[in-house]
Amino acid sequence: MIISYKDQFVNFITELQNEISSELENLDGSAKFISDKWVRAEGGGGDTRILKNGTVFEKAGVNTSVVHGELSPVIREKLGVEYGNFFACGLSLVIHPLSPMVPTVHANYRYFELYDENNEVVDQWFGGGSDLTPYYIFDEDPIHFHSTLKNVCDQFDPSFYKKFKLACDNYFHNAHRNEARGVGGLFFDYLRANENQDGQFWYNFVTSQGKAFLPSYLPIVEKRKTIEYNDDQKFWQEVRRGRYVEFNLIHDRGTLFGLKTNGRIESILMSLPSLVRWEYNHIPEVGTEEDKLIQVLKNPKNWLNVS
Amino acid sequence: MIISYKDQFVNFITELQNEISSELENLDGSAKFISDKWVRAEGGGGDTRILKNGTVFEKAGVNTSVVHGELSPVIREKLGVEYGNFFACGLSLVIHPLSPMVPTVHANYRYFELYDENNEVVDQWFGGGSDLTPYYIFDEDPIHFHSTLKNVCDQFDPSFYKKFKLACDNYFHNAHRNEARGVGGLFFDYLRANENQDGQFWYNFVTSQGKAFLPSYLPIVEKRKTIEYNDDQKFWQEVRRGRYVEFNLIHDRGTLFGLKTNGRIESILMSLPSLVRWEYNHIPEVGTEEDKLIQVLKNPKNWLNVS
Repeated sequence: MIISYKDQFVNFITELQNEISSELENLDGSAKFISDKWVRAEGGGGDTRILKNGTVFEKAGVNTSVVHGELSPVIREKLGVEYGNFFACGLSLVIHPLSPMVPTVHANYRYFELYDENNEVVDQWFGGGSDLTPYYIFDEDPIHFHSTLKNVCDQFDPSFYKKFKLACDNYFHNAHRNEARGVGGLFFDYLRANENQDGQFWYNFVTSQGKAFLPSYLPIVEKRKTIEYNDDQKFWQEVRRGRYVEFNLIHDRGTLFGLKTNGRIESILMSLPSLVRWEYNHIPEVGTEEDKLIQVLKNPKNWLNVS
Repeated sequence: MIISYKDQFVNFITELQNEISSELENLDGSAKFISDKWVRAEGGGGDTRILKNGTVFEKAGVNTSVVHGELSPVIREKLGVEYGNFFACGLSLVIHPLSPMVPTVHANYRYFELYDENNEVVDQWFGGGSDLTPYYIFDEDPIHFHSTLKNVCDQFDPSFYKKFKLACDNYFHNAHRNEARGVGGLFFDYLRANENQDGQFWYNFVTSQGKAFLPSYLPIVEKRKTIEYNDDQKFWQEVRRGRYVEFNLIHDRGTLFGLKTNGRIESILMSLPSLVRWEYNHIPEVGTEEDKLIQVLKNPKNWLNVS
């Protein structure tokens, strides 16, 4: 029999959502999150929390959803099962700061259960990760971000960081631009019990990653939020946000899956920045700070020199 | 033997590009098009013309491309042929006005040839169309736009307007929002010689549509360009431009095909507006002008009461 982590994980994401919302509000100092609770006709619902026009954050979404019901034909085919009810829950966040000196961040922690005809859990897995998207690169920021995530990984398995960092580089890749979305982080999915690791192990791993989110990101915001910037730098941020939109709408499997399976559009697309710009053939001059970013995105870095 | 329209159609789109660029510059009065000629490694190239930050037009792209070579495996599969060289040329334009009172417009006129091992034309077809995307609806604008296109259709076949108008409504549909991209126009593809219509017929039809572009659009711009607007109305335009981006990146077959087959990214994505905004769950109040637009987009109108 498989032990269910349903209730525990729902509690975890609910508390994490409260903690993250509250810490972001504190840091912002002016804007507050608005909670928009929604119900899914086929079962379950969510709590979409949006903060906008803050002093530090231009737009931030910290969402939880807890949904269940019968697997749709599309998902059945994707999972290769013929019948089944499912349960899925997760926390998903995207934070777009006002200042181009502060990086955008995305994180997701999720849990999935699949049931047989007798409502017994027949499969379960965890997934998630987090990644950082700066507009200007201060090397110590990705180093801090990656170090924090690696420290959590290393408590579980010395091979995890390298593996999940590579998966992140591979996933958050704007193939049509031949560049990374950002400076990476971790990406993991289908974390299932196996001969070495049980469900509890993966529950502990994913919740530890969730708890590491604030320490991985907030110190970077604190350090960069007071740096002055000019209109050209804001312009650059808006152009780069266009790439973020391109990734999410063209390549992101979660977004496309949600849009094609009647997901809640506004909760899915809260990931998009508020103000975005497309400028024809905008290529920064060689040697500028903007060019430095492009070079890093074209050749993902091994920030922690992990061999 | 099939008569090739290659040279004629290239001449046609080249002249049309010159005429449209020049008329748009005249109307704008301040900004000029910059021509960015590019070469395709596998054969052919294009002339991407971009105008930006004008008095009337915030961003306009009027592109031609003339490409040829061996069909890629992806296209061979799409067309169901085992071998072949191809020739493709077309004019593609997207105009994003500065004022939210002036509608965005898109148009495309294209021609395709397929060759056998002896370089004989074994297949050929025309395609294209144009469609209008207003931010505020003045009924007489879509009526003028549709009438102009219908007049051309009627010179060729009384059934064309209804058929190609419906195809346009079906194609430019943001399925995930359950709304149209705009107020429609015409969409036609794979126009081939058959027992009633020869290649010359379709050449005449598509080039006549191309020639009708300026008369279908410029009078609308002239009429609306001096209407005053406020920040809220500009904000609304930016939000709606987000829907334009969503359509192009999520649903537009041409865009996605180009991005996945190593097309010239900057020429493809010139269709995206410069300044765009995503606002969480932004729903206009019932009865407002903004709501009037939404209602029309949810229920495409039969502008000319064609039965």
